[in-house]
Amino acid sequence: MSSPIRIVLVDAQHPGNIGASARAMRNMGLESLVLVRPASHADPEAVARAAGAADLLASARVASTVDEAIGDCGLVLGATARPRAANWRVLDARAAAAAAVTASAARPVAILFGGERAGLSNEEIARCDALLTIPTRGGYGSLNLAQSVQVVCYEIAMAARAPTAEPRAAEPASADEMEAMHAHLERVMRRSGFMHEGNAASLAARVRRLLARARPDGAEVRILRGFLAALERGLPHAD
Amino acid sequence: MSSPIRIVLVDAQHPGNIGASARAMRNMGLESLVLVRPASHADPEAVARAAGAADLLASARVASTVDEAIGDCGLVLGATARPRAANWRVLDARAAAAAAVTASAARPVAILFGGERAGLSNEEIARCDALLTIPTRGGYGSLNLAQSVQVVCYEIAMAARAPTAEPRAAEPASADEMEAMHAHLERVMRRSGFMHEGNAASLAARVRRLLARARPDGAEVRILRGFLAALERGLPHAD
Repeated sequence: MSSPIRIVLVDAQHPGNIGASARAMRNMGLESLVLVRPASHADPEAVARAAGAADLLASARVASTVDEAIGDCGLVLGATARPRAANWRVLDARAAAAAAVTASAARPVAILFGGERAGLSNEEIARCDALLTIPTRGGYGSLNLAQSVQVVCYEIAMAARAPTAEPRAAEPASADEMEAMHAHLERVMRRSGFMHEGNAASLAARVRRLLARARPDGAEVRILRGFLAALERGLPHAD
Repeated sequence: MSSPIRIVLVDAQHPGNIGASARAMRNMGLESLVLVRPASHADPEAVARAAGAADLLASARVASTVDEAIGDCGLVLGATARPRAANWRVLDARAAAAAAVTASAARPVAILFGGERAGLSNEEIARCDALLTIPTRGGYGSLNLAQSVQVVCYEIAMAARAPTAEPRAAEPASADEMEAMHAHLERVMRRSGFMHEGNAASLAARVRRLLARARPDGAEVRILRGFLAALERGLPHAD
């Protein structure tokens, strides 16, 4: 792969899980770890569990928001135990790994893992292009954080060694381009009167899910924004 | 599967690894754990790391030799980081899991994992029908015991599950609903001035490709059309 596949741990609480995640990454050929609001990662338990990957742990980037961690990424996947929201694009770990390896040929890819207590928030999930689930059996469904990272990193290593190529004519837009488009779209929805305080949150979430499934490329984002700009010129100024 | 696939930990030293292995098994639908000469498995750390699988841990069988653990098995696989002995049949974790699931239709299957320090002895490997390795990358190759058990149990779950469709909460909109939405969208694009004779054909085609990838459901089509209707009320009448 030419760009990194980045593991992003959001609100990780247990140093042992952070260290074990670093070890899992190193074994599977991944080197880019970002910690968003970690409880502690210089903890001796983290270093002990990292074993031979203590340097990977030490070079982890610490970020205060998910946006900071994913801004340059062409694909953002969110790991979740139970896909909650309807109509997200959901990939199992194997399919997600294949998509990540393919997308990483062009741009960095981020895989988000939520904290031990509550997983990813709905707001964080809204920043994802698709959700990733690890199939479990028997209805238990309680892999811990480090175990989940292990399985995902393993699937990435397996996907990377097989030559895969899901052909795609153009690269997906970056997370920053997608955010700018959503901001533009929400402004026009408000000015048209379609979005208002009563429906803003749920409407924005639904539109994000819909467009995440489409995975527009850069040219398509420019087309959508051109349309929005034309609409804005015609609409009365609100507020 | 009709017979159990048994996880056999030989000379496991760290209670945490034993507990985490139990948790990994439970998540992946495996219930039969045998401990050969464990250092300690009633240790509080083992119970803590087992989480919701403490009962699986408590019901683990303790054996004093590998032979005791595998006597009734139709297939015995030995997990090893580096296949040492020449001329063993070596399967990667995925192929080994498929073989285990197939063989378990007839008789119990055992997968042996050696201790943290030295792995399986040559004598123990000699009792195996084949060796199992977990592919790693970058030449590090140092999964710990619990991580190895996790990956193998995950591959067994993947091999055992029936082919499933990608889950989807709601049915895609019908072709008629999609056509009506496209007609509405094109009308608004024309009235806004964004679509005109010079770009109509290519623009319509691009928008159709984009929305086809998103595969909106009926509720999403109604949302898009609600937005279009709000825009139309604000736009000047063209023509």
